[in-house]
Amino acid sequence: MTYCVGMMLDRGLVLMSDTRTNSGVDNISTFRKMYHWEVPGERIITVMSAGNLATTQSVISQLEDRNKAPSERHNSLLEAPTMFRVASIVGNLLQDIISERASDNGQRAAGTFSASMIVAGQIKGMEPRLFLIYPEGNFIEASFDTPFFQIGETKYGRPILIRGYDRTMSFESAIKLLTVSFDSTLKANLSVGLPLDLLVIERDKFAPLHERRIDEADPYFRSVSTSWSEALRHALDGLPNYHLD
Amino acid sequence: MTYCVGMMLDRGLVLMSDTRTNSGVDNISTFRKMYHWEVPGERIITVMSAGNLATTQSVISQLEDRNKAPSERHNSLLEAPTMFRVASIVGNLLQDIISERASDNGQRAAGTFSASMIVAGQIKGMEPRLFLIYPEGNFIEASFDTPFFQIGETKYGRPILIRGYDRTMSFESAIKLLTVSFDSTLKANLSVGLPLDLLVIERDKFAPLHERRIDEADPYFRSVSTSWSEALRHALDGLPNYHLD
Repeated sequence: MTYCVGMMLDRGLVLMSDTRTNSGVDNISTFRKMYHWEVPGERIITVMSAGNLATTQSVISQLEDRNKAPSERHNSLLEAPTMFRVASIVGNLLQDIISERASDNGQRAAGTFSASMIVAGQIKGMEPRLFLIYPEGNFIEASFDTPFFQIGETKYGRPILIRGYDRTMSFESAIKLLTVSFDSTLKANLSVGLPLDLLVIERDKFAPLHERRIDEADPYFRSVSTSWSEALRHALDGLPNYHLD
Repeated sequence: MTYCVGMMLDRGLVLMSDTRTNSGVDNISTFRKMYHWEVPGERIITVMSAGNLATTQSVISQLEDRNKAPSERHNSLLEAPTMFRVASIVGNLLQDIISERASDNGQRAAGTFSASMIVAGQIKGMEPRLFLIYPEGNFIEASFDTPFFQIGETKYGRPILIRGYDRTMSFESAIKLLTVSFDSTLKANLSVGLPLDLLVIERDKFAPLHERRIDEADPYFRSVSTSWSEALRHALDGLPNYHLD
């Protein structure tokens, strides 16, 4: 399993992903699920993935044109004219890879090889945009009605995002909110695990404002994780009391 | 879908369930999912159910012996010597009903007719006990290592239960905690809906201490629901701030 969130703010985009993959509880590994590419001053594009690791790694490898010699590679995401076109490229590639593998392995394999992705970024002269790509290759775009997308193990960490999100919030507050959402998910589901990858993209900067790998020793993560129980108990205490009669 | 929680405290048991059933989003109804029977001064037994409504109603009807004339009925739960025996009776009945229906309708029907249940109660001279019954008819019992069981749509409301639960808490605090857990689930999933049923069983009383149906107009539910967003934001504000560099 996996947990990734892409969030759209007035100031830009904040993205967080875990790094745990598992094939059974006795086969746990760490793999990066967040990738980004940039043309400094012109565009920055991020992809996060959930689902079958062979599928998602294949998508990333093909986006980077890795079946060619390094000098001959060109990344079509860096040449696409719009973020909509970027989302189409990723969606078509994802659907191709899933359906090719499924057709080689029978109908039941479609579920096994399935994956979904979040694509986010900005190209100069246009707004920052955020997309959720389905295994079928089609996609939806975030708006301020639905300003964040989650993929993977989404439920545990969703209520706090619903309650805590505010489009005008600072990057620091958004990172705090995401840290709590990830901590709640980590506590509830062993298939989501540290370290986490964090990327902050400021509007009209076309380069990462902040990039960080958060591991078990990370003092900020530890302090939020330990403070949150106390903060929640305090929040519960502050609610109106029930009276039995 | 459904959301039910059974919680074991030092003081006794607290149970809450929603009442929404749906067969598609255009076919939504309200049905009770919590039942209890008592022999005043001797025992009280509660059953909550999630899953196929025909299956769970059939279990309850057969427990109440409703295929006989009212004067000839006897409820075997009220004659079982122990809560372990009560859980066995419910588990066997549940498994029988699911497998009978599945065998009449082909193998794929087993999932369709599936259901799970929470059984809780106390019989005089013994401790209060809490069980989770699987569709296969077997069951597990709560202990203070795992002091609450959830069935149905369990994930949204789980993080707050993990953080807020304390075995020594008062019934009032437990109801407050459950109200928040249910509110988070209601906000995230349309297939869980008001009204809620609430039952409090005090240790060694063998009668409901408190029983209540919580509907949309319920002032306590409304005040918790509206206060919680504010309380969470306040809790988030109180956490250590992230620094971008």
